[in-house]
Amino acid sequence: RLAVVTPTYHREKNRNIQTIQLIALQNTLCSTCLGMIWILVESESDWRKSSLVERYEREERPAYCERVLVKALRVKVERSKHRGVAQRNKALDWLEQQISYVEQDPVVLFVDDDNAYAAEHFVRATKIGKVGVWPVGFPSTKSKFEAPVVKTQRQSDALRSSSSSSSPKVVGFRSFWCGDLKNFKPRVFNVDMSGFGVRLHALEKVRFDENVRSGYLEDAFLQAITRSVLRRDNKTSENENEGNPSHLLNALETTHVSEIFVWHLYHTVLSGETPAALVVSKVPKGDSFLCP
Amino acid sequence: RLAVVTPTYHREKNRNIQTIQLIALQNTLCSTCLGMIWILVESESDWRKSSLVERYEREERPAYCERVLVKALRVKVERSKHRGVAQRNKALDWLEQQISYVEQDPVVLFVDDDNAYAAEHFVRATKIGKVGVWPVGFPSTKSKFEAPVVKTQRQSDALRSSSSSSSPKVVGFRSFWCGDLKNFKPRVFNVDMSGFGVRLHALEKVRFDENVRSGYLEDAFLQAITRSVLRRDNKTSENENEGNPSHLLNALETTHVSEIFVWHLYHTVLSGETPAALVVSKVPKGDSFLCP
Ligand SMILES: O=c1ccn([C@@H]2O[C@H](COP(=O)(O)OP(=O)(O)O)[C@@H](O)[C@H]2O)c(=O)[nH]1
Ligand SMILES: O=c1ccn([C@@H]2O[C@H](COP(=O)(O)OP(=O)(O)O)[C@@H](O)[C@H]2O)c(=O)[nH]1
Ligand SMILES: [Mn+2]
Ligand SMILES: [Mn+2]
Repeated sequence: RLAVVTPTYHREKNRNIQTIQLIALQNTLCSTCLGMIWILVESESDWRKSSLVERYEREERPAYCERVLVKALRVKVERSKHRGVAQRNKALDWLEQQISYVEQDPVVLFVDDDNAYAAEHFVRATKIGKVGVWPVGFPSTKSKFEAPVVKTQRQSDALRSSSSSSSPKVVGFRSFWCGDLKNFKPRVFNVDMSGFGVRLHALEKVRFDENVRSGYLEDAFLQAITRSVLRRDNKTSENENEGNPSHLLNALETTHVSEIFVWHLYHTVLSGETPAALVVSKVPKGDSFLCP
Repeated sequence: RLAVVTPTYHREKNRNIQTIQLIALQNTLCSTCLGMIWILVESESDWRKSSLVERYEREERPAYCERVLVKALRVKVERSKHRGVAQRNKALDWLEQQISYVEQDPVVLFVDDDNAYAAEHFVRATKIGKVGVWPVGFPSTKSKFEAPVVKTQRQSDALRSSSSSSSPKVVGFRSFWCGDLKNFKPRVFNVDMSGFGVRLHALEKVRFDENVRSGYLEDAFLQAITRSVLRRDNKTSENENEGNPSHLLNALETTHVSEIFVWHLYHTVLSGETPAALVVSKVPKGDSFLCP
């Protein structure tokens, strides 16, 4: 089961966009035939500017879509350097208050309204235990993708002998942006909002932090979550790994590492580069764009 | 059962678009849970510029989409004032050559890759007998919609006493463009490519005509089809109605007349008007935009 969190807003300059995106997203969610709760979150000022949000919440689900339940929430949004943060946190607050969902323990996915999703994206997400990551397509960037780098158990035996599973272990990431390396520090999790999922119980009240640097929103969120997952599993002691956050990767699972089922669209092209937009559905082999 | 015909091409200036649209369209078709054949038709020069077309045709359908079969066709496209005509005709040629489809007699729908479709669009289309029409949203035009005008049986008794069904009868159309009234003649069928469906057997080898005026492609196609439907049903004699093509409306059915389940996007705004784009999902009551 899934909990799909979608911040959405009305684009005054193109009044088609929100509706078109929500229609496409609803169709995609329905097409998965998975049971899910779809949480649409608007700001106070965007609230009900699209009649679709209201309609999706109220209408009786048609037969081909009856397993997709819809909840519409609104939240006061302050000025922020990040987009959608208050909306996503509001959805998490709501979820953690619903006893039935806490018991169901769905995988929480952050599904922006402006990306492209193959139905398989949602099917794969249901497979994760606690925290999962996967590749994301970025048609407008230099690399065209972002993806976890894994070692199979054999290769990583030396690194993590305690693990008993034979699934591939995440040892790093390939990305077109590894962080603000000159002025700040590298990201530990080079992962987009659409590139990970978290089982509800593993959230443990962690929220997105408005105050982190631009580009570090997902990294900070995943650091907090993996830290609490590892602590709960007694896989790490705080002192042992102080100052070396890369052990946090030990908490990650992958559902797939070479196929791409989600594409982050309209991502700003990094300055100085003008790569042609290109949608790829395979992560190229090799270690191009490997982050430090 | 449905036969969905989609002309598609590679946009050199925005290499994302075709892939994004095909992903969204595939998700939408899958979400209907209907059995269908999806015919994707590319020009020789566009052939296989999108790897998705090939992938969709070859891949084993995932479980949630196994009822959507895909056929990819290519066709030589000459310079034309219309878009997608050779592609659609190629699909019709192919369909009429497949004995299994001729026997199955699916409803043929023309589904451009750049519109927005609610899943219900496809569900409704399966209900038509021979030739059906329905409303279409046009977010960027002045009227925001185009829709058939109906009279219930009672109202239209005087007009067509021969009909035994009690379903509403189409007596005209509301549209933001009723034809080139000054220089040519009004359209009989003020219907967009996405606003009608035809049962395969009712096609009777009718094709889209490259040589008709811009804006009259659907009108000419539907005139030819309804003429042959009425002739076969002995509902009309050629002489009787000469010079009065409006009797052709008698061949039309409607599946719904006030709800909108398909939106024609990016339609050029008519010159001199700059209406804000707006997606409506109900046809407004009244007779605004009623065509002559
Ligand atoms: O004022 C805003 C801006 C964005 N969003 C939503 O937040 C998500 C991310 O926004 P955007 O796509 O603009 O950011 P980016 O993908 O560039 O990070 C999307 O689902 C938007 O609909 C929102 O709810 N309110
Ligand atoms: O060179 C072209 C131009 C268009 N199309 C397809 O034909 C349909 C109608 O084209 P378009 O949307 O440009 O026309 P409009 O909607 O303005 O009539 C769409 O499915 C396009 O993908 C095509 O196959 N080749
Ligand atoms: Mn975005
Ligand atoms: Mn179009």
